[in-house]
Amino acid sequence: MKSYEHIINEYEGIKKSGVDNLNSNNVFQNIKNLAFGCQEYLSSCGRIELISKVADKAYFSFNRGNKSSRAIRNDLFTTDNKLLELFLDCLNSNEFNSISNDDLDKAGYTIAISFCAVIDIEKVGDQKTPGTFFEYFMGHCFAKKLNVNPENKVDVLNLDMEMTLPTDLIFDLGPNKPKFHVPVKTSTRERVIQVWAHQRVLDGVYGSGRFIGVLACLSETKLNKKRLEVVEICLPNQWRLYQLYIAQMKGVYYLDLPEVYAKLNLSFPKIHVKTFSSFFKEPIDVLLTE
Amino acid sequence: MKSYEHIINEYEGIKKSGVDNLNSNNVFQNIKNLAFGCQEYLSSCGRIELISKVADKAYFSFNRGNKSSRAIRNDLFTTDNKLLELFLDCLNSNEFNSISNDDLDKAGYTIAISFCAVIDIEKVGDQKTPGTFFEYFMGHCFAKKLNVNPENKVDVLNLDMEMTLPTDLIFDLGPNKPKFHVPVKTSTRERVIQVWAHQRVLDGVYGSGRFIGVLACLSETKLNKKRLEVVEICLPNQWRLYQLYIAQMKGVYYLDLPEVYAKLNLSFPKIHVKTFSSFFKEPIDVLLTE
Repeated sequence: MKSYEHIINEYEGIKKSGVDNLNSNNVFQNIKNLAFGCQEYLSSCGRIELISKVADKAYFSFNRGNKSSRAIRNDLFTTDNKLLELFLDCLNSNEFNSISNDDLDKAGYTIAISFCAVIDIEKVGDQKTPGTFFEYFMGHCFAKKLNVNPENKVDVLNLDMEMTLPTDLIFDLGPNKPKFHVPVKTSTRERVIQVWAHQRVLDGVYGSGRFIGVLACLSETKLNKKRLEVVEICLPNQWRLYQLYIAQMKGVYYLDLPEVYAKLNLSFPKIHVKTFSSFFKEPIDVLLTE
Repeated sequence: MKSYEHIINEYEGIKKSGVDNLNSNNVFQNIKNLAFGCQEYLSSCGRIELISKVADKAYFSFNRGNKSSRAIRNDLFTTDNKLLELFLDCLNSNEFNSISNDDLDKAGYTIAISFCAVIDIEKVGDQKTPGTFFEYFMGHCFAKKLNVNPENKVDVLNLDMEMTLPTDLIFDLGPNKPKFHVPVKTSTRERVIQVWAHQRVLDGVYGSGRFIGVLACLSETKLNKKRLEVVEICLPNQWRLYQLYIAQMKGVYYLDLPEVYAKLNLSFPKIHVKTFSSFFKEPIDVLLTE
């Protein structure tokens, strides 16, 4: 169908332009076109209300024929294109005073989950394409906010070893300024230990404190398509052990924030786990001083 | 077909008995029956020679109708049931003098890869079932050799935190004796950082040197089914960084050992990367003293 091809063209555009400069206007335009393309596509899909096993959160799923999408949070998904437009204008100008936290979270969540939903319906079992888009989308948002184009590798020089270490996104704000190490995951589960391990390698190679670890996540929901039940899979005690014994992640930003992870703000070892909007509305100093 | 159901019954038996005691005779009998069941199943399949891009190694693939298996190394796969019988007798008696290193590697490789091949053909895209079997099979082999039933969790007590840490296989040889931490993977790729990170958590919680990290792997091949080409995907420089900056893995044992990883025996930081048979034929002291 025409709108799907249009969406995929924009996605390919993001990948092509994003390789060189994730902070570029080309990437911004591709994301904008993709976002509205997904809205158009999904407006012709049906909706199934899901049975939510997650306290205080309701979810639905888009469907077309016998294909259906992952779980989508009712209160975060918006069909208000004007809200998406406002968010994109704020992003492009790196000026977020005119948008509320709630609206920022809604717009970010909607753009991210909409593309995932389209791919769920069109390409059953494809986890890679949604993950790749989410990485580019988050990378672009962080690049706009920090006003720097990220790298995805760093040089390592250790006596007779000279090599390049592939990394998640690295935002280097310049001499005597912080450098951010930003892994991006649609969901984490037991694979999340990789995030702390990469932080540990950066701490080891460059010294503790040189890279500030910030994780960006979409959600932790899991949908049982037969029973139409949504659960959240969270491992807060394992996060605490990783924070104590592997390395320190300073901040974690979720589009659909699980309550058990939000509580890690309150216990030792403290991890700054917040909603997506907090990264754009709070002073970045919160990550440097806590 | 009958032989497939028989194989799956034995696989379910391994899972059922293995939960309580991976070192049990029930698990041994299930593995033995499964191994011969796979031989029977595969004897009725065709073979396709593959184009090997791996130096000095030739590979083929089993096929049935339009389904085909992963890459299988010609010189390690055997149809000699007497050899499998000899290996299983040695395993059961924990006495490996009567089998050569080469025969031990062939038998271990054949049992592991045969089940993977059957599942590749019967359940396209199922990576979990071969991975689970391989974990039980390796766990059983290590349990026989070390003569102890492994655990898959350890207790953590840290001031006001009291919790259980899920782990890979842990073999506790008793007071004042080594404890082995044994992750098992059919292949590693970039996910391998998890292995070092888990070792780091154990080192942190219990102190460095309390757990000896030993990784068991099947192979690192990747088959392009369209072009019938086999490559090996290896990241030796990343292993070196993990060994320097995250934790120390003492040994890595491969059924199909990649040459670039074998070379890590020769460079700093040294990692003892060997064939499967070495674990059974060498004194274990090599892991404690190097």
